[in-house]
Amino acid sequence: MDLHGGNIYRLEREGKSSILDYSSNINPLGVPETFKKAVIENFDVLVKYPDPDYIELRSSISKYNSLNIENVVVGNGATEVLFLYMQALRPKKALIVAPSFAEYKRALESVDCEIIYYKLLPEKNFALNIEEFSKNIPQCDLVIICNPNNPTGTFIPLENIKRINNILKVKKIKLFIDEAFIEFIKGWEEMTAANLRDENIFIMRALTKFFAVPGLRLGYGIYFDKEIASQLLMKKEPWSVNSFADIAGKVMLKDEKYITATEEWIDKEKKWFFEECNKINKIRAYKTNTNFILIKLIADTAENIKVKMLEKNILVRDASNFVGLDEHYIRLAIKNRDNNIKVLEALKEVVE
Amino acid sequence: MDLHGGNIYRLEREGKSSILDYSSNINPLGVPETFKKAVIENFDVLVKYPDPDYIELRSSISKYNSLNIENVVVGNGATEVLFLYMQALRPKKALIVAPSFAEYKRALESVDCEIIYYKLLPEKNFALNIEEFSKNIPQCDLVIICNPNNPTGTFIPLENIKRINNILKVKKIKLFIDEAFIEFIKGWEEMTAANLRDENIFIMRALTKFFAVPGLRLGYGIYFDKEIASQLLMKKEPWSVNSFADIAGKVMLKDEKYITATEEWIDKEKKWFFEECNKINKIRAYKTNTNFILIKLIADTAENIKVKMLEKNILVRDASNFVGLDEHYIRLAIKNRDNNIKVLEALKEVVE
Repeated sequence: MDLHGGNIYRLEREGKSSILDYSSNINPLGVPETFKKAVIENFDVLVKYPDPDYIELRSSISKYNSLNIENVVVGNGATEVLFLYMQALRPKKALIVAPSFAEYKRALESVDCEIIYYKLLPEKNFALNIEEFSKNIPQCDLVIICNPNNPTGTFIPLENIKRINNILKVKKIKLFIDEAFIEFIKGWEEMTAANLRDENIFIMRALTKFFAVPGLRLGYGIYFDKEIASQLLMKKEPWSVNSFADIAGKVMLKDEKYITATEEWIDKEKKWFFEECNKINKIRAYKTNTNFILIKLIADTAENIKVKMLEKNILVRDASNFVGLDEHYIRLAIKNRDNNIKVLEALKEVVE
Repeated sequence: MDLHGGNIYRLEREGKSSILDYSSNINPLGVPETFKKAVIENFDVLVKYPDPDYIELRSSISKYNSLNIENVVVGNGATEVLFLYMQALRPKKALIVAPSFAEYKRALESVDCEIIYYKLLPEKNFALNIEEFSKNIPQCDLVIICNPNNPTGTFIPLENIKRINNILKVKKIKLFIDEAFIEFIKGWEEMTAANLRDENIFIMRALTKFFAVPGLRLGYGIYFDKEIASQLLMKKEPWSVNSFADIAGKVMLKDEKYITATEEWIDKEKKWFFEECNKINKIRAYKTNTNFILIKLIADTAENIKVKMLEKNILVRDASNFVGLDEHYIRLAIKNRDNNIKVLEALKEVVE
């Protein structure tokens, strides 16, 4: 199984401890206090099954996104939403814009779908050229785009998503957009594909990254297609979202203080981190729109650098197994300034 | 979707409140305090993804069952384990011993499996006659048995499970046993099919009922077949068990005090509840081995009685939609003495 980031548990079992985990792109502000308070106060919700319709949770999520409750399906992490959508659509052939998150492939394989890749190029900074792309879309059932893209940090503006979608609609190809990291972009509310309210588009989101709760398992899908709705409901396992995740969705999405603090942190930190990276010799950092950064190692391999960084108790993501990348790429999370300084210093030492 | 018990949330949205929920078979001792303490102390585990291999959790579960870690797969509730097993096995034709839990049907349908039923008879107290059963097993890929059986409360002793399994093995038919309620039987450790350590058998368990945490979502499977292991791992979504459920498994299974208190409560209460039921005219209660009881209404329908009980703020399970039952059956949970008395008094009033 190809997992997000590194397997910190395996390292700990092997005797490594207090590792600074820069392989996992989680908000350094930590679990919102408002949520902790709500869990302690409502601990006994566990003795009941969750609401199978998740009415209150879906209502909170739809308000947060200025949508209606019918546009929202919730899942046990974004992963369940991803696998569920594939079960519902059952594409025969899908195109993944790569490099990107490895779970799309696994989800497509779970429904025996043929997979092709459209590769973004490092020499073009992994930007998607719409004209080029349009000419090269083969007949298929589904196109998958991660936006902002993991691991490149690139972002396709809404008007271009609209153009792509219009081209796909003519060809009767559905569009799946993973927006798990979009909230790290200032003004994301204006930039999400949800604004298009288009039947052809399915959007995946997670609370994991922005609210620092990957252990909680809460993701959701946004959609406007009534046909897929009945398929989703039929295939869905009941009560897949646990009661604490249910509470989280209701509490955290209203936590303006946490949201504002996060926006201020990332807005400042991502620019700084990118600039500092590019002051280091023998690496090349790609400009990022979100809370992680892709780095090309000019003179060394990711495997080597990962080992050397681990000797300094820092775990980085060896990005060489992303389709379209090679053995020279690593991905770093962006966290708080103190730790970012430590990581940059360590990186400088190991690469120069 | 056919859900466990009644939908208490829908009733609450319709204005009903403080309902005594006897449709849901949850331990009345409530969430173990040891677990609550552990969650508060370890709240920040949420900022990490769970261990994708769930080593510690699977180790706790295997110790609790005197097994090895390789024999245990964990899931987001027993439901995930059930659906996952069907994805891994992909049976073409399956036989369900009925009446029983409705989710087997949904899980089989999710892999387009043909379903046939072997119906247990009320006039035989829903007991499974092995000779009769053996003669009537058609060629198929899988037999599903719930033991103790939901909703009848009947239990098949281990030696009979062994006989059934031997017959099935000759016919190359796999055996799936749902033991979600087995821990409510005194001395269950000697009676579980896990003792057979047989490659042909897959056992499903849940922490939901015994430890009163249906909102937490934690179930597991026990298996000895290496072939199915690789299929299970391939089909499994990563991190499907949340970090709090991970803690729960480690803490609750060692909570001897809670376990003993539960055993003492249910051992006393199930006999008493059965005897009291049968003092009421116009109903017939079936002897139960676990924490719920099936009741036949001699002179009324489940639909009527459900409405009348709800007027008294008690929710019962209309059991008429279980395959093999008719409109005259309800199922009641067994809870603490005070509430049991209230429910029995109310039932007496509405049926007599």
